Amino acid sequence: MRFQPRFDGYVERVHQALRDQPFISSVLGAHATLVEAGHVVIEMPLRADLLQPQGQVHGTVATALADSAAGYAAETLVAIDQHIVTVEYKVNFLAPGVGERLRASGRVLRAGRTLSVCEADVYAEGEGEGRHILHMVTTMMAVGA
Amino acid sequence: MRFQPRFDGYVERVHQALRDQPFISSVLGAHATLVEAGHVVIEMPLRADLLQPQGQVHGTVATALADSAAGYAAETLVAIDQHIVTVEYKVNFLAPGVGERLRASGRVLRAGRTLSVCEADVYAEGEGEGRHILHMVTTMMAVGA
Amino acid sequence: MRFQPRFDGYVERVHQALRDQPFISSVLGAHATLVEAGHVVIEMPLRADLLQPQGQVHGTVATALADSAAGYAAETLVAIDQHIVTVEYKVNFLAPGVGERLRASGRVLRAGRTLSVCEADVYAEGEGEGRHILHMVTTMMAVGA
Amino acid sequence: MRFQPRFDGYVERVHQALRDQPFISSVLGAHATLVEAGHVVIEMPLRADLLQPQGQVHGTVATALADSAAGYAAETLVAIDQHIVTVEYKVNFLAPGVGERLRASGRVLRAGRTLSVCEADVYAEGEGEGRHILHMVTTMMAVGA
Repeated sequence: MRFQPRFDGYVERVHQALRDQPFISSVLGAHATLVEAGHVVIEMPLRADLLQPQGQVHGTVATALADSAAGYAAETLVAIDQHIVTVEYKVNFLAPGVGERLRASGRVLRAGRTLSVCEADVYAEGEGEGRHILHMVTTMMAVGA
Repeated sequence: MRFQPRFDGYVERVHQALRDQPFISSVLGAHATLVEAGHVVIEMPLRADLLQPQGQVHGTVATALADSAAGYAAETLVAIDQHIVTVEYKVNFLAPGVGERLRASGRVLRAGRTLSVCEADVYAEGEGEGRHILHMVTTMMAVGA
Repeated sequence: MRFQPRFDGYVERVHQALRDQPFISSVLGAHATLVEAGHVVIEMPLRADLLQPQGQVHGTVATALADSAAGYAAETLVAIDQHIVTVEYKVNFLAPGVGERLRASGRVLRAGRTLSVCEADVYAEGEGEGRHILHMVTTMMAVGA
Repeated sequence: MRFQPRFDGYVERVHQALRDQPFISSVLGAHATLVEAGHVVIEMPLRADLLQPQGQVHGTVATALADSAAGYAAETLVAIDQHIVTVEYKVNFLAPGVGERLRASGRVLRAGRTLSVCEADVYAEGEGEGRHILHMVTTMMAVGA
């Protein structure tokens, strides 16, 4: 699906918004590696204090990355005086997250005037092929200035 | 509903398991304040680096607390050589999380041999009454030793 | 939680709306047995053509009843020129639905200006105690006249 | 993703299982139009008694079709002495379902030994292009003979 952003500067706004979220940018250490209309990719390195005792990433860390990718994908499509809040999400865990970094890809499935439906997928990457570890579907709401 | 734990020491096992999760115990700073059969309460202080720019807690932090409360509630009911993994969860955000600390209460709704269904609710607390900010329903799976 | 309806006649409106839904009232044969502010109960008899080959009710029949109970619970709280549409729901199946009839109880958890979060539970009833077979959480939206 | 069925006759088994579900085959009038490993398509005509007063299909009818497509997609991959039960699903409604018929496409995202994660999408079709009206993600469980 092709989406039409409503103002110039929507790419830089996502990068800035991510930097302004200390939980995502500082605590988790994530940053956006792709921002386009309706699609955002966010990556982060895996650190020891984000892992479970068995060695895989804590599932809620991957959830945080997925929520950000999906929410900012929706935020590329709202008006300049709006931003996005998460209404609800549902997450399925597909495989243990083992590797050097996580990559989350968020896409808008349906962009409405008020509500958007997005999907996000998280991959654990290292040497070799990435592994699909999480699938999220979420409802996002545009809220006014 | 009354649940019957399958071994002595299930309370201490939950406290120890939480301490062994660095993301929950160290990064988020959470600890269990109540552990009983099928019911666990986890609390954490709110720090500046867990807040969004508008001042409320990042929703995925509250999700992490809810997942832990629900998962350990299920873990009070498994056999001594089993532990719990999260299969899936769904989260609705009910209100902005503003206050001094979060409290998550997780309860088992249905305890099956393999799968359990749990609920968790998160409250933002400070002065005055707590506010209900998040509701989760989750499927948990007991995995063998 | 106490809710305040916005117009007289909200009880009769729910009964009428249910009668105007042929899939719920005629195909499934359901009707409301309790309508109050933020809470609706709907019941239906179980017929052979709604059962699976193993004898339990098809899960999507119970889902339909839960969605109606939750949606009409939300509809008791909107303005007279609004009605409710289902944005999304999530359903956990807790037990096989065996018995003579289903009863769904829907309640509003949070009533917002645009979005409401509701829960619904479905019970299979016959001789003896009812059995809790389904739990739903759903987001409902009020849409204008 | 490529999947490997575990026995010959998995295609005919799905067709037969659908015919043996009176709610799906008789009440809703649906049948499978494609069955392959990990992927099932089910279609049904839209009748007046399945519509809401505004003319679109009742959302729970589309849910029933999606659940069947996803569940039978999973059932193409289990052993001959197993069948699939729905553990949970989550559904987002994307657009009103108006047209002559519904088509649901279900796919397995991850096939585990016990649990499978599937997606299903429902389209309302008539003259012109189909419209994507529903997206489901679901957890299915293989249960023994």
